Amino acid sequence: MKKFFSPRSIAILGASANLSSISGKPLRFLQEHGYQGEVYPVNPKYEEIAGVKCYPSILAIPGSVDAALIAVNYKRVPGMIEECIQKGVKFVTIFSSGFAETGAEGQKLQQQIVQLAREAGMRVLGPNCQGMVNLTEGIVGGFSASLEIKPLLAGPTGFVTQSGALGYSIFNLAQEAGVGFSYIVSSGNESDLHSLDFIEYMLEDEATRMVVTYLEGIKDGEQFVRLADRALEVGKPLVVLKVGRSEIGQKAAASHTASLTGSDAVYDAFFKQKGIIRVDDIEGIIDIAGLLQRVKKIPQGKGLGIITTSGGAGILVADEAEALELDVPALDAKTKKVIMDIIPAYGSALNPVDVTAQVINEAEDFLKVLQVMVDNPDINALVIVITMITGASGQQMARDIVRMSHLTDKPLVVAWTAGDRLMRDSLEILREGQVACFKSPVRAVRALGALMNYGSFREKSLSRDERETLKPADKQVLTAAKEAAKEILTQSEDTLTEYQSKKLLACYAIPVTKEEVATSQEQAVSIAESIGYPVALKIDSPDVPHKTEAGGLKLHIKGQKEVEVAYQEILDNVKQYSPKARINGVLVQEMVSGGTEVIVGVNNDSDFGPTVMFGLGGIFVEILKDVSLRVAPVSKEEALEMIREIKGFKVLDGARGKPKADIESLAEVLVKVSRLALDLKEEIAEMDINPLLVLPQGQGVKVADALVIKKK
Amino acid sequence: MKKFFSPRSIAILGASANLSSISGKPLRFLQEHGYQGEVYPVNPKYEEIAGVKCYPSILAIPGSVDAALIAVNYKRVPGMIEECIQKGVKFVTIFSSGFAETGAEGQKLQQQIVQLAREAGMRVLGPNCQGMVNLTEGIVGGFSASLEIKPLLAGPTGFVTQSGALGYSIFNLAQEAGVGFSYIVSSGNESDLHSLDFIEYMLEDEATRMVVTYLEGIKDGEQFVRLADRALEVGKPLVVLKVGRSEIGQKAAASHTASLTGSDAVYDAFFKQKGIIRVDDIEGIIDIAGLLQRVKKIPQGKGLGIITTSGGAGILVADEAEALELDVPALDAKTKKVIMDIIPAYGSALNPVDVTAQVINEAEDFLKVLQVMVDNPDINALVIVITMITGASGQQMARDIVRMSHLTDKPLVVAWTAGDRLMRDSLEILREGQVACFKSPVRAVRALGALMNYGSFREKSLSRDERETLKPADKQVLTAAKEAAKEILTQSEDTLTEYQSKKLLACYAIPVTKEEVATSQEQAVSIAESIGYPVALKIDSPDVPHKTEAGGLKLHIKGQKEVEVAYQEILDNVKQYSPKARINGVLVQEMVSGGTEVIVGVNNDSDFGPTVMFGLGGIFVEILKDVSLRVAPVSKEEALEMIREIKGFKVLDGARGKPKADIESLAEVLVKVSRLALDLKEEIAEMDINPLLVLPQGQGVKVADALVIKKK
Repeated sequence: MKKFFSPRSIAILGASANLSSISGKPLRFLQEHGYQGEVYPVNPKYEEIAGVKCYPSILAIPGSVDAALIAVNYKRVPGMIEECIQKGVKFVTIFSSGFAETGAEGQKLQQQIVQLAREAGMRVLGPNCQGMVNLTEGIVGGFSASLEIKPLLAGPTGFVTQSGALGYSIFNLAQEAGVGFSYIVSSGNESDLHSLDFIEYMLEDEATRMVVTYLEGIKDGEQFVRLADRALEVGKPLVVLKVGRSEIGQKAAASHTASLTGSDAVYDAFFKQKGIIRVDDIEGIIDIAGLLQRVKKIPQGKGLGIITTSGGAGILVADEAEALELDVPALDAKTKKVIMDIIPAYGSALNPVDVTAQVINEAEDFLKVLQVMVDNPDINALVIVITMITGASGQQMARDIVRMSHLTDKPLVVAWTAGDRLMRDSLEILREGQVACFKSPVRAVRALGALMNYGSFREKSLSRDERETLKPADKQVLTAAKEAAKEILTQSEDTLTEYQSKKLLACYAIPVTKEEVATSQEQAVSIAESIGYPVALKIDSPDVPHKTEAGGLKLHIKGQKEVEVAYQEILDNVKQYSPKARINGVLVQEMVSGGTEVIVGVNNDSDFGPTVMFGLGGIFVEILKDVSLRVAPVSKEEALEMIREIKGFKVLDGARGKPKADIESLAEVLVKVSRLALDLKEEIAEMDINPLLVLPQGQGVKVADALVIKKK
Repeated sequence: MKKFFSPRSIAILGASANLSSISGKPLRFLQEHGYQGEVYPVNPKYEEIAGVKCYPSILAIPGSVDAALIAVNYKRVPGMIEECIQKGVKFVTIFSSGFAETGAEGQKLQQQIVQLAREAGMRVLGPNCQGMVNLTEGIVGGFSASLEIKPLLAGPTGFVTQSGALGYSIFNLAQEAGVGFSYIVSSGNESDLHSLDFIEYMLEDEATRMVVTYLEGIKDGEQFVRLADRALEVGKPLVVLKVGRSEIGQKAAASHTASLTGSDAVYDAFFKQKGIIRVDDIEGIIDIAGLLQRVKKIPQGKGLGIITTSGGAGILVADEAEALELDVPALDAKTKKVIMDIIPAYGSALNPVDVTAQVINEAEDFLKVLQVMVDNPDINALVIVITMITGASGQQMARDIVRMSHLTDKPLVVAWTAGDRLMRDSLEILREGQVACFKSPVRAVRALGALMNYGSFREKSLSRDERETLKPADKQVLTAAKEAAKEILTQSEDTLTEYQSKKLLACYAIPVTKEEVATSQEQAVSIAESIGYPVALKIDSPDVPHKTEAGGLKLHIKGQKEVEVAYQEILDNVKQYSPKARINGVLVQEMVSGGTEVIVGVNNDSDFGPTVMFGLGGIFVEILKDVSLRVAPVSKEEALEMIREIKGFKVLDGARGKPKADIESLAEVLVKVSRLALDLKEEIAEMDINPLLVLPQGQGVKVADALVIKKK
């Protein structure tokens, strides 16, 4: 992949002498941005273009070719691909459209090309893409108008975009705002190389400290899980602008990419699970990338200090900080004292610290406030809001901030709410001093808060070392569980009965009710007595999904006589209700009393594979849709977060005088279910444990009913 | 007030010859921005300042003085005020700080000043404020650095700010973004004239089509209600940046304004109730004001058309539109056909319409798409997203948009996601053509969506004519209700008993359970028989708030014997539980069965007065805090919205196989409760109906228990 981003020689197939056209710009851009390698325009029509020798065919090029850019009509692309293969090209970028995005025929042509390339081991970017730019080395393999700007600013952020038009326009806006990138790649139709491939590369790349991406959907959920974990490990934040949140948006995305993407709720859950920063506007990308390039070290905590020259602006920032779940810690007496000695009576030594515009009157005052706030161990980063302070006073404040920012690793982020005309001089001082400066206080704290939340998430996630390697003994147990479960699945029909479903769960040591299937009254009685009364009796049939309706359910049965009567009644009822139903027998089941009913579900997301869903029973799921979601596998800590995340959590936490529920055991079930779902993802389409009874603390949980549906 | 905004003569008390100081700038600004009236600097130190004759005292000025600006040390302000009164000044603006914002002593000084002014009929702006600017007439009564910019841009938006520093910096940012204002007023400590006074004036002012405001809290809830209604009537949107959403923010606000403000939840409910646009960042103000000045007519519907040159950008806009609850209507076959004939195969004729960058290739194509979208009756406004289209093609698109915008009243809002350097020419065409242009697609649709939601709210609100005038007969009934209720309150203690509370509710024709207090077994039986069995018996005592604990409650009583036994048991239990409790008797009460339990509450907000709260019983309120809120009075339509707004609404709407509840009757109770709360706001501190039983449709509602607490 290194050669993809740093090719030593580039051929431009279909190069045009019109240097403003799509097929003419790449050559000009490569020249203008100082590409150091060899460039070979290829076009039989010309001897040379822009002073560079032009070849009639790629095969006529004397030296080797690392990368080829193809900008010809789609009909001519397959021929070009063949020649590239013959030439031994490593990477081709196809700008041309006319492929999968246009319909079935284009899709076929695209598959043809990819097949050719794959067989030859040549990788393809595109088609229908806007190419790649490596800003660290001035390699411009694209044609976007945004590349007209010179010089392009390099920076620590890699950018991967599934929309060429939008991506390069975000790039352009960012560049104009002084925000640099290490690379930008537009992945187009992703016929071969796709977004996650580039992100994965950038995570290992030295020039890249963060990756931002515009996403509509992904190709490979497992790869995303893997690279998200790797991103946390190496401490490079992932920032995602994922569209298709809404129904209309999803429809539009389907029409745009010609493929249905997974549920946005799953993406959202996954981002939360992996500390991925989600933004909802192009400005979010620009703001965070702009901030990162000014930040020496991502803060590892959520303690935010706010200093402001206007009380109002301080409140605005505090409001947003709380919405972002940051801490705005109260200041200790010592810190307060220092500040109070400086500020006037109408200022405030709370956090937010309102220094008022008066702070400019005494030479060292502002610096002293900065110092004492930076020294405060509860504070991990500072937002400094300056309103209409301009001229020499503004310059002095800017210099003070720069001075302090050189003395600390804690980020000092400025929001200077004045137009450029009045504070350009101060802005220049901040820029030269490498201090991030925003106009909007809210956007400043949003960008900073995203990094702080990321840093704090990463700290927690590393410290708990969730994905501890399994001991060999555990592995054996798990392999045995998987084998046993597969055996059950093989023997059952598309929809497992309750009894089968629970047996399956039991393979993974998930506690289920004691139960057995009886095929005679006597057997029913003997099972009931070994379980202990009271018991429940339920019809066991693959053809009776609605047991209650069919009269196939009897609860609270307390003795031998009752068992016998119930057994017979159930059989009679079901026979009448559904004469053709096959009957395995009658399930005799332990009655569990007490506990809180919760629901645990498994679904297969089209992008991410198995996901685990959790919610409280009854109205919580049915009416309030109060559920949490994670992509499997789910760690114990993640499971605990899932549980705490729902709005109704208090119900489990001892609200309304009830005892606290056994949340530990519940979390373990979520972990086990996620493991089961992953092990059996090829076999199981969906699964529902409804209800799972969560007993009081220390007493565990029990599956009272479950349903497993196999993949067809 | 006209003279406040358009004084014909202005005196500057304490005018300084240093024209860059706070007391020197007002004179210079008045001159530089072309003030047409008389200006009188007052300062015994100078004969003249900047070529203008200077007076030793305001009393020495020959002509009359409409307005005085005071910029002296706070200690000298009272003397100045006295002279202003003597001179017959109508309005004084006090820039100086050192008053209520500094503590008790300053507060006293401020009160002194206001008292003097009030007695003389002179109005005061400030102190501790940054003054007023009338941009329509070039009258600059302030000293903010933001006023250095020339010329100041006039526009249709009035701006009222409780923070001078933040307000004028928003003003400056807006001006630099080309956004004009009719006025800006910084209200400072609001010792006399306050924010709502200025908003109220601007609603009647011809130059103002919208009012934006930065708010920390208000002085007069009733005035806010009145002016919000008036704003809807005249069709001038109110846009509010209200801070103090968070706990930390509220604390900071309290320290900033030295006064506790009402609950932010009440503000939020009020804004919803009155169609007031709430923004959460300074950019929200700038964006909406910038849009309004380009919009001929605020759309009256929520139908949004989206046209984009990039599929991705279209999805981004659609996502945000759905989050804003706008409609993104599907296009009819005819509209689609026209578009499909124009766009390439990989575009989209859904809404969002993806015309792709290819649209620039044929001269009239883009215009045709604009036309057919504008002609679509389901579409009230358009967002047009253009990505990296620059140069001649960009200019042509800009010209097409301008052309179409002149042919329609529907707003055409552009989001052009390219840096200024590459599209300044196109931007200029849009600006000259009076078309609003954003960089961020999300901010574009947020600003437009705010106006569309406002317009649609206003349409609905005007059409239903909620606040219909009462007939004289109704008025009589209401007066009688109020009198009767007051009588009950007079006769009861601080906390009303259940019986008294319900009697109070019954005065307002709110249905309560049939019930009477019995003081003997015989009476209890006779009441029970007239009500009909089953009945409930409850202790009636002002000293036993927790009836169940005291053994003072018996339910489901079905006959004479049972009544007698229960009666005696209750008395015995209570006597043992609380020997000193005064006992009025035993309440014999109808048992209502069925229905859904809801809670209706009344609270007195410190800013807005009585508010009405609604929620479902049990976990919905206790655990999920799933409640809705409105400021009294609540209209029937507002009550219905309150009911539909809670997350658990489906419980009333026939979820889980239950019959639909009588939502009409429930809404009527909310209306009546709001009327009661308003009538008795001086007497009642809080009230709780818990539960109110809502029976199935057509069967009404019934108060099962209620509690009223009087003001002390």
